[in-house]
Amino acid sequence: MEQKGSKSPQKLSGLRRQHKGLINLMPLQTGGMLTDAAKEALVEFGDGYSVCDFCQGVLCSITNPPIRDFVQEVLPPFLGCDVATITHGAREAKFMVMHSLARPADAILVDGSRHYTTFVAAERVGLNIIEVPHSGHPEFRIDVNQYELLIKKHNPRLILLTYPDGNYGNLPDARRLGEIAQEHNIPYILNGAYAVGRMPITMEEMGADFIVGSGHKSMASTGPVGVLGMKKKWEQIVLRKSTRHSNKDIELLGCTVRGVPLMTLMASFPYVKERVTDWDEQVSKAQWFSAELERLGFIQLGERPHRHDLLHFDAPALYEISKRVREKGYFLYKELKERGIWGPQPGLAKSFKVSTFAAARQQLGFVIDSFKAILNKYG
Amino acid sequence: MEQKGSKSPQKLSGLRRQHKGLINLMPLQTGGMLTDAAKEALVEFGDGYSVCDFCQGVLCSITNPPIRDFVQEVLPPFLGCDVATITHGAREAKFMVMHSLARPADAILVDGSRHYTTFVAAERVGLNIIEVPHSGHPEFRIDVNQYELLIKKHNPRLILLTYPDGNYGNLPDARRLGEIAQEHNIPYILNGAYAVGRMPITMEEMGADFIVGSGHKSMASTGPVGVLGMKKKWEQIVLRKSTRHSNKDIELLGCTVRGVPLMTLMASFPYVKERVTDWDEQVSKAQWFSAELERLGFIQLGERPHRHDLLHFDAPALYEISKRVREKGYFLYKELKERGIWGPQPGLAKSFKVSTFAAARQQLGFVIDSFKAILNKYG
Repeated sequence: MEQKGSKSPQKLSGLRRQHKGLINLMPLQTGGMLTDAAKEALVEFGDGYSVCDFCQGVLCSITNPPIRDFVQEVLPPFLGCDVATITHGAREAKFMVMHSLARPADAILVDGSRHYTTFVAAERVGLNIIEVPHSGHPEFRIDVNQYELLIKKHNPRLILLTYPDGNYGNLPDARRLGEIAQEHNIPYILNGAYAVGRMPITMEEMGADFIVGSGHKSMASTGPVGVLGMKKKWEQIVLRKSTRHSNKDIELLGCTVRGVPLMTLMASFPYVKERVTDWDEQVSKAQWFSAELERLGFIQLGERPHRHDLLHFDAPALYEISKRVREKGYFLYKELKERGIWGPQPGLAKSFKVSTFAAARQQLGFVIDSFKAILNKYG
Repeated sequence: MEQKGSKSPQKLSGLRRQHKGLINLMPLQTGGMLTDAAKEALVEFGDGYSVCDFCQGVLCSITNPPIRDFVQEVLPPFLGCDVATITHGAREAKFMVMHSLARPADAILVDGSRHYTTFVAAERVGLNIIEVPHSGHPEFRIDVNQYELLIKKHNPRLILLTYPDGNYGNLPDARRLGEIAQEHNIPYILNGAYAVGRMPITMEEMGADFIVGSGHKSMASTGPVGVLGMKKKWEQIVLRKSTRHSNKDIELLGCTVRGVPLMTLMASFPYVKERVTDWDEQVSKAQWFSAELERLGFIQLGERPHRHDLLHFDAPALYEISKRVREKGYFLYKELKERGIWGPQPGLAKSFKVSTFAAARQQLGFVIDSFKAILNKYG
């Protein structure tokens, strides 16, 4: 009965994060830091299938813990949709919509700033992916009016807009695209992975058919978990049931996040619902931070004035330094980490991305001073 | 900037499990209870995307925490496969294999005791699902030789076997099916959601092309997370890369479990690898428990002698009681819970399923005495 020998897994004990407790500017992480309530839920529902104690067959219908209420009563008004469900994350939500509505070789029209997972999800379905180009360096703007021409040319089955995109934090005119979508009667997916849970946004006000959100990116949740909202008219298609197992959603394979990430999403929700009302201050904080970094010689990419906490900077001075130091581009990561700051992708110095969402102004002041000190040190 | 009002989410605070600390016999849960190391990893990597601190673009290639080593070095010998990857769970693994290898209207041959998710995954791909019938009450056996006749008749693109099934804990002759699969050159998926992490099993010894395991069901992990092993020959098909984003797996949508469930799987693994060597004792314990319950008048369904901790009993005496008490079938749940025992599905009394995997013999002795006392109380 001896299992075939495998490599010593000693390295698997004592798994630790090196960045715990640092000032966190990493764009992927600033919206996913847990609330205290979520930390409690994490421990409470940590064991395997423990959310399923009182399951009657369908995750989203469980009443204890109150998943049904959360999905049916709490999420729809928050997302501004008729029907909501839980997914493994934004990418899985996009795939299930594409897989339900489109057939291989159908065209889908997406913005040129789309996340790579939009492309891969469409590719998994076998779609013909048409991209609406952005305006290029330095603003990378998406003009949604360009969708119209491409709709006429390609007759897409679906259109998708990333709001904001993850590279530059640009917020294209999602509402105008809603009008275009309705005019041409084409289902419209709004990818709000960096919007839902950070800023006020509803599917309804944008005129979209679907809204996609990410728990781990923007709703103070453990990864991975996401939300998907839709118009009532799509429920029978996207949430169609199995022919044999009549209570099981085909696209969800019955149930999706049958575990603790969903519990953290629910536990954090009261806080998340509240925090989106502070969005004006978040934008103001990001603009101030951006202006301060520009005074140091960095150049903010993307829309100006900026309207989101995701910020991308060209950093020619850092790049010059990276070319002559032993650590190459890693010097920036090392210097920031020594000062208790974590965010820009290790190894990159030519340009870097940060998010000001989780840091207080005082902390950001320290970050600005740190960049100043680093430039001086190597200047 | 006010978000559209949603129902008061007060119920979302203080989420608690009622069954924490009880003797746990619930089949879904006994293999997914966390180790101490996993509990630590849970807290350490609880925040959103915190496993991605050092991501270079692909989850399974992350070296800190050591995901790459785990996936490339540790898992393959344990699963007896050439190539392994991480999935959201067993159902998602089955879907990705079916979606990669088969086309709509292709036939798939599955055992009649398959989990509902096998059916739904195949349905999501649009497959023609053919079932090899089981022998019916009381043993529900699958004779794998019946696959041969149906292979000749339907020329399936794939075959799948559930080992063991989740209803009766039967272990059909997976090795014989491996010979049949190889003889007919048909890819063979072994669904080991209740095997991998509980008992010694490898894909290689069974002659399968794919092996599917579940972290939350049987590998002491937080839900949801799973593992998929395969022969080298399928790597280019199932783990094919995006045409545009050359390091991204299409079927994984880039990355799957980008969060803490994977960390718990890794943290528990040294313990899980060890515990499968105690399988003889697990089987002996299950057989003893089953014999004791049969002495009380319950009838064990499934194979005899039983070779797995999943047990299903017909309970005519409990059913008689349920017909005359106020709580109906819920009386059993209530009586057991009062005694600190949790397991049979609340509301069911005619027959019930339990797993002896997590409970010690002494605890199971108390469970047997409790059933005795309940029968006496209402007798």
